[in-house]
Amino acid sequence: MALPNDYTGQACSLARSLEIIGERWTLLIVRDAFWGVRRYADFIDHLRMPRAVLASRLKALTAAGVMTRVAGERHLEYELTDKGTALWPVVLSLMSWGDDFCALDGPRRLFRHAADGGQVDQWGRCETCGKPVPAADTIVAPGPGLEPPADDDSWVTTALTGPHRLLEPLRTAAAVLSRTGRSPEVTPRDSAKIE
Amino acid sequence: MALPNDYTGQACSLARSLEIIGERWTLLIVRDAFWGVRRYADFIDHLRMPRAVLASRLKALTAAGVMTRVAGERHLEYELTDKGTALWPVVLSLMSWGDDFCALDGPRRLFRHAADGGQVDQWGRCETCGKPVPAADTIVAPGPGLEPPADDDSWVTTALTGPHRLLEPLRTAAAVLSRTGRSPEVTPRDSAKIE
Repeated sequence: MALPNDYTGQACSLARSLEIIGERWTLLIVRDAFWGVRRYADFIDHLRMPRAVLASRLKALTAAGVMTRVAGERHLEYELTDKGTALWPVVLSLMSWGDDFCALDGPRRLFRHAADGGQVDQWGRCETCGKPVPAADTIVAPGPGLEPPADDDSWVTTALTGPHRLLEPLRTAAAVLSRTGRSPEVTPRDSAKIE
Repeated sequence: MALPNDYTGQACSLARSLEIIGERWTLLIVRDAFWGVRRYADFIDHLRMPRAVLASRLKALTAAGVMTRVAGERHLEYELTDKGTALWPVVLSLMSWGDDFCALDGPRRLFRHAADGGQVDQWGRCETCGKPVPAADTIVAPGPGLEPPADDDSWVTTALTGPHRLLEPLRTAAAVLSRTGRSPEVTPRDSAKIE
């Protein structure tokens, strides 16, 4: 069924937000950016979405000021702007709701406050110190519902089986080694990623 | 471009949430249900969306257990279940983000804690008592960005120019009067709504 591309006549801030991030896949791209995914090929590899759709969504997100293109070491990278980072409560609340009502084995990801290790609740507060925890001070860690990675999973999936600070670039072990100048112990999988 | 109807291979709770509430218009219907809209004709009147789309979205929302059909006074009504009410942090965080980045004249709606009148922040906490405020204890009130209702606006828009407790059924003045047995002072507009 054909629908207009915007919510005509809906001046509400919710409708305006949905015009920017309500497209299919868009919030999953934003979520991956919080996880530290930055490269086009890595979004494709992790999200397994059509290339043309990713290109169109990244274009819309940069046009809306949610993401920005920055020079990476070998490739252009995408990162969240302040406007994009401010979407953390949206991502967190949607994920918590899915955990509460759709995740039979419990949450796949848990969030901790980097400062004191306290668990972050669905409202984004640290259960230890009671303060709101910005994305940049949040550690994502595997939860009880996270299945072990499969053989054909993306390196991003594997990297996210360990704790990781939100927004910090997620790098392959090989990329980190090559950056630090140490002799890389590159697996065939890793080497394919840093062509 | 054709896309699959689900996020194939995305087991994340965010993807599962989006499968339920990520369709175009769905979150605006849920928002209206928080405002107290309950009748099919009133969703149509307020949202000005195609009837077939509303029917399809309400069907999906009831199948997913987010909304349920209940007998109203004269018509079937739709109301949020506990699962649906648990979406309040999602609606609030999306609306706050839109307010912060897309609303030039300031928020159109403000939220207050019914218990002490404290303002509710984007994380759903009362700025006076510091407690998280459930939807049912929240008063929605007009904010500085709310434009005055236009002549052809729905009665829902007009009703929401005053403070209103979330989830409490929004009724026309005429409907309230007829319920309380007092002689109704019905305007032509109101009488059209309670056919």
